[in-house]
Amino acid sequence: MIGELELDSTAERIGDGVHTPALSDRWGLDDGRLNGGYQLAVALRALASEVPLPDPVVASASYLRPAMPGPARVLTEVVRAGRRLATGTSRIVQPGPDGAERDVLRMEATFADLAASPAEPHDLTAPPDLPPFERCTTFGGADAPASVAPVGRRMRYGVTAMPGWARRAPSGDPRAEFWFAFADGSDATLLDLAFVVDGAAPVVLELGRGSSTAQLTVHLREHPAPGPLRCRTLTNHLSHGLHEEDVEVWDSAGALVAQSRQLALLL
Amino acid sequence: MIGELELDSTAERIGDGVHTPALSDRWGLDDGRLNGGYQLAVALRALASEVPLPDPVVASASYLRPAMPGPARVLTEVVRAGRRLATGTSRIVQPGPDGAERDVLRMEATFADLAASPAEPHDLTAPPDLPPFERCTTFGGADAPASVAPVGRRMRYGVTAMPGWARRAPSGDPRAEFWFAFADGSDATLLDLAFVVDGAAPVVLELGRGSSTAQLTVHLREHPAPGPLRCRTLTNHLSHGLHEEDVEVWDSAGALVAQSRQLALLL
Repeated sequence: MIGELELDSTAERIGDGVHTPALSDRWGLDDGRLNGGYQLAVALRALASEVPLPDPVVASASYLRPAMPGPARVLTEVVRAGRRLATGTSRIVQPGPDGAERDVLRMEATFADLAASPAEPHDLTAPPDLPPFERCTTFGGADAPASVAPVGRRMRYGVTAMPGWARRAPSGDPRAEFWFAFADGSDATLLDLAFVVDGAAPVVLELGRGSSTAQLTVHLREHPAPGPLRCRTLTNHLSHGLHEEDVEVWDSAGALVAQSRQLALLL
Repeated sequence: MIGELELDSTAERIGDGVHTPALSDRWGLDDGRLNGGYQLAVALRALASEVPLPDPVVASASYLRPAMPGPARVLTEVVRAGRRLATGTSRIVQPGPDGAERDVLRMEATFADLAASPAEPHDLTAPPDLPPFERCTTFGGADAPASVAPVGRRMRYGVTAMPGWARRAPSGDPRAEFWFAFADGSDATLLDLAFVVDGAAPVVLELGRGSSTAQLTVHLREHPAPGPLRCRTLTNHLSHGLHEEDVEVWDSAGALVAQSRQLALLL
């Protein structure tokens, strides 16, 4: 089954590394701007179709201006194609107020062929200890209240207790552990994980603050097994109006599949 | 006092965002290639001189080919200059075997003005619990044995026990805690921290493996107080011949000053 994310992040290639996605309002925030993880999935999928190795293993993006639903261009360039690794860049451009195209997102990503080396994991991480998804309190999804932004309707979260920010009672502790599943029932692919790590609400909401991503780097470590994903989100350090947010994602089999860190502006 | 790193990473600007550093063999590894953190400091310092905000807060680099001592060019571009954040790119290029210039490193970095917002830190991190630097076992430095690579002579580490890999007895535990100080006695600046996070030997040496950095992202969070720095290095996950390495750095006053993560190839 091809999921909504793959459908909405696949673009036509018009030649010479240029792709023309129609950015979908299904991945919008409350104010109409598009979710950063969705933008990353669009930029990464376009580049993936140009690079000679199959698996994105690291992607790093700078968010320069709000991305809005509608036409855009993605300009890709393969900058190095080696035997074990290949690297390229991808830029999403959209027209500004004066009609001239300008950069919305700039991304650089490196690809490998994960199947070329045995997994042989050495892993010091541990997924969150959560009850099975079916036994958790869930929120989000297609039948969420009208107050939930479009992007929140694309996925369902499973938690043991509703987060403080969602009860208008921020906990003061910027951490969260939860299940993630696409609302359409599709399983996340390796590339989809670039969305997943920016899919959830920022944990600084537990400090009563909003946030806007400036830079996000994600490591994509393993093709996820089918089923919902376990996530841990944590802001370790906030200062000078900036904070980091780390997200780790494990698949249903307990394998670490993605690690991300972003630097964001406090609002 | 201007430190060796600043001297060796400052380049002449020949106009239009182009800088011409002489990459110094003082920052070389055993095989003559240049340390990745040194390359990052060169690329970042050139860009810093072009960007209208003073403090680099995040830099992300892809290591495409070995950088060698000698002439190079750094090509910088400011891609967005906003009120709170400014972003640019920097490429180090050197001639290849056929004499044609090619990319060695590509970096993207975002700058802010840390002094424009009060620090007001909210910090869940804790520096390593180490005895004072003067009471630690130290290694590296200008008087290190001839077997130590040039880059290892530029700094001194302070530890409570020599690392397993240095005693040819890898511990099996890919973690390390240590003091870092420049061997010339200079204090690290905010920008220098981009070198510090890649200055130490990779902790996968404790698994008996070598490593080559593919991508490194560093967050620079605070101007360090004078004095040696405390560092914690950790590889959480290794699979498919790739591993991440996280480094956190605290200054002598206990403030978190840098956080980095790299993805590297196992050798």
